[in-house]
Amino acid sequence: MKQVYIAVLGFGTVGYGVYQVLRQNGDMIAHREGLKISIKRILVKDFVNEPNYDKAPKELFVTGMDEIMADPEINIVVECMGGIEPARTCILQALDAGKSVVTSNKEVISKHWYTFDAAARRTGAGLYIEATVGGGIPLIRALTDGLQASRIDRIMGIINGTTNFILTKMSEEGLAFEDVLREAQANGFAEANPAADVEGYDACYKLSILSSLAFHTHIPVATIYREGITRLTVADFEIAKQLGYEIKLLAIGKKTESDKMLVETRVHPTMLKKTHPLASIRGSFNAVFLHGNTVDDVMLYGRGAGQLPTASAVLGDVIYACHHEGAHPQVTFRNIPDTDSGTVVLKDWDSIYCIRLRVADRPGVLSSIAGVFANHNVSLKTVLQSAESDEDKTKHIAKITFITHMARELSVQAALKDLVNLECTESIDGLIRVEE
Amino acid sequence: MKQVYIAVLGFGTVGYGVYQVLRQNGDMIAHREGLKISIKRILVKDFVNEPNYDKAPKELFVTGMDEIMADPEINIVVECMGGIEPARTCILQALDAGKSVVTSNKEVISKHWYTFDAAARRTGAGLYIEATVGGGIPLIRALTDGLQASRIDRIMGIINGTTNFILTKMSEEGLAFEDVLREAQANGFAEANPAADVEGYDACYKLSILSSLAFHTHIPVATIYREGITRLTVADFEIAKQLGYEIKLLAIGKKTESDKMLVETRVHPTMLKKTHPLASIRGSFNAVFLHGNTVDDVMLYGRGAGQLPTASAVLGDVIYACHHEGAHPQVTFRNIPDTDSGTVVLKDWDSIYCIRLRVADRPGVLSSIAGVFANHNVSLKTVLQSAESDEDKTKHIAKITFITHMARELSVQAALKDLVNLECTESIDGLIRVEE
Repeated sequence: MKQVYIAVLGFGTVGYGVYQVLRQNGDMIAHREGLKISIKRILVKDFVNEPNYDKAPKELFVTGMDEIMADPEINIVVECMGGIEPARTCILQALDAGKSVVTSNKEVISKHWYTFDAAARRTGAGLYIEATVGGGIPLIRALTDGLQASRIDRIMGIINGTTNFILTKMSEEGLAFEDVLREAQANGFAEANPAADVEGYDACYKLSILSSLAFHTHIPVATIYREGITRLTVADFEIAKQLGYEIKLLAIGKKTESDKMLVETRVHPTMLKKTHPLASIRGSFNAVFLHGNTVDDVMLYGRGAGQLPTASAVLGDVIYACHHEGAHPQVTFRNIPDTDSGTVVLKDWDSIYCIRLRVADRPGVLSSIAGVFANHNVSLKTVLQSAESDEDKTKHIAKITFITHMARELSVQAALKDLVNLECTESIDGLIRVEE
Repeated sequence: MKQVYIAVLGFGTVGYGVYQVLRQNGDMIAHREGLKISIKRILVKDFVNEPNYDKAPKELFVTGMDEIMADPEINIVVECMGGIEPARTCILQALDAGKSVVTSNKEVISKHWYTFDAAARRTGAGLYIEATVGGGIPLIRALTDGLQASRIDRIMGIINGTTNFILTKMSEEGLAFEDVLREAQANGFAEANPAADVEGYDACYKLSILSSLAFHTHIPVATIYREGITRLTVADFEIAKQLGYEIKLLAIGKKTESDKMLVETRVHPTMLKKTHPLASIRGSFNAVFLHGNTVDDVMLYGRGAGQLPTASAVLGDVIYACHHEGAHPQVTFRNIPDTDSGTVVLKDWDSIYCIRLRVADRPGVLSSIAGVFANHNVSLKTVLQSAESDEDKTKHIAKITFITHMARELSVQAALKDLVNLECTESIDGLIRVEE
């Protein structure tokens, strides 16, 4: 039996989860894997304000990295603090000293991946990130150790549980965003400050990691197009339902190879046909749908967040790190572009669009609007004139929904700008991209 | 760049697929993984009758293992012959000589796993089996390298594409089994001799592998309860639809731990609520649903068979084997029972049952039947008397469907025996187990 000592940085949801999973399954892991994993130190900001301070033996807690760094028995540091600092500094300290790092921190990995990778390669330490995306779903390992013989060209994922919980409620109960958000906050499914989730930042961090791994190139967070779910309305869901779609916050990555590798990465509300496997992912579950040139479609589904699932992923990495001591595979960083001529992250891409407008209800209006789309090479597939409200009737307002054929993003944006300036346009009520 | 030479045994669907995927993605693998993988030998029975003989350079083909065994450059042998012999002998020969084996052969692995494992441990060779279950879905690696910190207590899988293709057609088009089978055979979706698929043998091989890995104990194929899909009728699907279920051929493994580890493993047609993620898996796709004590629900979905997906899994294993040369993790065989007192594979288990009967239509009959169920402690949840056909009306026959509460398998079987002997029973038309 090999004795393994780890330090846990941060004792919030995930850190305390690691402690709990070890208590529940530590004997099983010892029995099966021949590894006795013990937490030797827990790093917290201070003892007084640490809400979980009474949940583990007091002698484990420290407030600084010194004791952890000085302890030669601690070979693996588990970082569950979240955010950039002090996580970044602690991870670098550990890697520089040759201690392997297992982390659940998607923000710091998505932003400082390259610095960590360089440090890990220098000292031979391992760097493991399974818990950063998709909680308990073995997603990262699937990309690095399972699907590596296939050329992944498409990722579509529901990788934020909070927003999927909100969208499921909006879809199934016909509620407004603000009402569902309030309920989710009351039940602990959404943070008091929900921006990271509902504005799509969290999904961007995760998509940066996933698409970098899948496409073997660096996709910086800042290059990902981002649009949250805050502007979705009851009317959006009504139209979606009418047309046979669900609305999901999708993280999308697509790759095409010409002389350069062309990548599009974007996080935005998306209308998905109800028959698509991702359309039926409900509540706080996550799922990632991948397509590879030889493996075809693969989907992985599970608890994308939550204390014990995420902690299970962390401990899975700890076990993996133990089995690879002295020969860590640097699994997360085989990110060599396929083409030497580099990667271009596109600002323009092809998609189908669902656009809702309120316009003056009089002859000739539809023709002007269709003309604007045509001027920008945006071809229309479906036009739906919805029932008008009484208010609209008195004001002679019509509501029109357009579904386009495949069109260019920038052309659609340009068409919308022109539409706003049309005298007959009352308002542009919605634009949702469609995936089939 | 490391040059890796492999031998491919068998050049049918999977073996030729490996050749194709290497041609398509070999440069990418070389670039990303630093491995130049070349096929040096292809073993076939004889040249004349080999249908793919003209699809690779003639000088690669051999008809005996000698040249492969004698070649010190060939470190990895890829077995894609299927069936027991000569696959078993070839695999053992390779392992005994310290050559690593990658195989897609579920039958030989499910039946000779222990012999292979012993040989691999003796010589330090690697034994990799990702392609045996679920084609391109990275399922085996999820169990061995991803979810190992969680205690998996439940598996439910659609792991045979042919039967799922047939059941999807029966469900969606209301067709009879024989008609869909004939169509599937004509289109190449089912074998001329379909027994391995439609009688559930193939699913049993795969469930033996999956449940042995997930529960860390040996589940021999012979201990798995098996029932195929050949007896399903149009009426079964009508009742299922009426009650909100889909019918799937599920491979089920459940584990409970008391003083011994109690395991139930079974392959049979199963009624699943339409909202269950597995219920929406259509056509030849596969999916496996797992539950672990800390990771909760996880589902993996993809192409469960097919030339290129399966070959991708084979090559994923080849890459993994290369990266672990000299320290193969024996990933497939950490199958140590959790309890030292052993494992019992149960012949009895709890389930819900849907039972269809044709009975004499006269007073007192329902009471007699209900009495038989009660005698065997089978409690009824739903009783449905279906519309009778004209023929039934003249003969005074009623059709009744019962859904039970949770009941014991052996009690239900005993009740059915008694029911057959009741004078009022015309026929027992169906018994399908239900999972919720």
